[in-house]
Amino acid sequence: MLLALCSAKRSKRKHYTPCKNIVLYYHDIIYNGTNAANATSSIVAAPQGANLTKLAPQFHFGDMIVFDDPITLDNNLHSKPIGRAQGFYMYDTKNAYTAWFSFTLILNSPYYEGTITLAGADPTIKTTRDISVTGGTGDFFMHRGIATLITDTFQGDAYFRLRIEIKFYECW
Amino acid sequence: MLLALCSAKRSKRKHYTPCKNIVLYYHDIIYNGTNAANATSSIVAAPQGANLTKLAPQFHFGDMIVFDDPITLDNNLHSKPIGRAQGFYMYDTKNAYTAWFSFTLILNSPYYEGTITLAGADPTIKTTRDISVTGGTGDFFMHRGIATLITDTFQGDAYFRLRIEIKFYECW
Amino acid sequence: MLLALCSAKRSKRKHYTPCKNIVLYYHDIIYNGTNAANATSSIVAAPQGANLTKLAPQFHFGDMIVFDDPITLDNNLHSKPIGRAQGFYMYDTKNAYTAWFSFTLILNSPYYEGTITLAGADPTIKTTRDISVTGGTGDFFMHRGIATLITDTFQGDAYFRLRIEIKFYECW
Repeated sequence: MLLALCSAKRSKRKHYTPCKNIVLYYHDIIYNGTNAANATSSIVAAPQGANLTKLAPQFHFGDMIVFDDPITLDNNLHSKPIGRAQGFYMYDTKNAYTAWFSFTLILNSPYYEGTITLAGADPTIKTTRDISVTGGTGDFFMHRGIATLITDTFQGDAYFRLRIEIKFYECW
Repeated sequence: MLLALCSAKRSKRKHYTPCKNIVLYYHDIIYNGTNAANATSSIVAAPQGANLTKLAPQFHFGDMIVFDDPITLDNNLHSKPIGRAQGFYMYDTKNAYTAWFSFTLILNSPYYEGTITLAGADPTIKTTRDISVTGGTGDFFMHRGIATLITDTFQGDAYFRLRIEIKFYECW
Repeated sequence: MLLALCSAKRSKRKHYTPCKNIVLYYHDIIYNGTNAANATSSIVAAPQGANLTKLAPQFHFGDMIVFDDPITLDNNLHSKPIGRAQGFYMYDTKNAYTAWFSFTLILNSPYYEGTITLAGADPTIKTTRDISVTGGTGDFFMHRGIATLITDTFQGDAYFRLRIEIKFYECW
């Protein structure tokens, strides 16, 4: 019954066509105490009992990570970056891997020139997660939309790559 | 004179009717070093001289708290949660209790399915405080609005419950 | 060729006239362990090996700073404040001075009464940097726009003053 109710409700949602659509990848290598040359992010805050070179127990709850990650147009870490993803995320659940992100994509290439600021919850247990575009400048002046995150790959705690598809529904 | 000026100015503001209105409660129990089983939030950063199991002196200035709080439809901590409030807040004044919040309401129930992302200043000394809806997904796709926070109750530093009324003025 | 392409592309951008325009200054004095009486901000999180009373090496990468800064209408630290800028910033690059800001301007004066919430990247190496207005309340109810930051002056790590010009393109 409830499922039927929900599904009926959801099918009633209006469907909109994006006015602009972008797919990007970004690459995060967390600092572990020994990889300073390659690391693109660092734990800067952690809960009681944890430290800054190893993600905390209990699904990393309470770890806050600052990042400056290269953005590429394809899924290759070694492709020429077209910008940087800068901001932070924090792990925010004690019994599952979920994170909360707030960051800016700073694009600086012949393709795109401008910034896209994003915020939202990232329950990494789901295949796709929607967060919100909260602001844009330059080519993305005043734009609004939704960004869908997919964990394209990860290697334990050492590396992850996010595919981010941004659908703008309000363009200027 | 000034008061007259302000009040004249404010009465000139246009009045709008929300296109959607929601009232929720969420419940925060901060980790104090001994309540790991019940705590829903944790201090993860603190100013020089403070620690992670006790809120800092000077109106907690500089404490940053990550939370994963249950959301209920009424003011009872033990009601069935309809979602989680996840994100962080920080105390940001040395001579008064004021906080700055940035978080997402993740609703997952027959009533609502989607996320509402919020940010803004929370001068807890005022009875009601307005923060901004900066993004929405799912049932709240592209919505914008204002959320009014009220401290519904608190027990020292051990527990607080916020009543949050969200008025959307832009629905899709 | 590329330059020509970019410049052609950028000149194609539409131009909009703001519906409201505000210029403000805010003043930040970071806590260094000895200036508690005057400090308006404090390092609350820092990367491995750094501390909370001195900005970190490597362009301060990983330092997170909570602030409660006075806002003035002119560039004089001692002018009567018309509000407070409250929130945080973090340094987020290892080889340049760039920061990421998320904060609220809380204005409380005969001129303005309300809040403006902002977020975005602040590559301080550039003369002007655009960040996004993500929300507004009171006189700025539901407003959206762009804020341009200029470092009006700085004295080493001890003091900086930002000039912030906010251009609203969506007023209510």
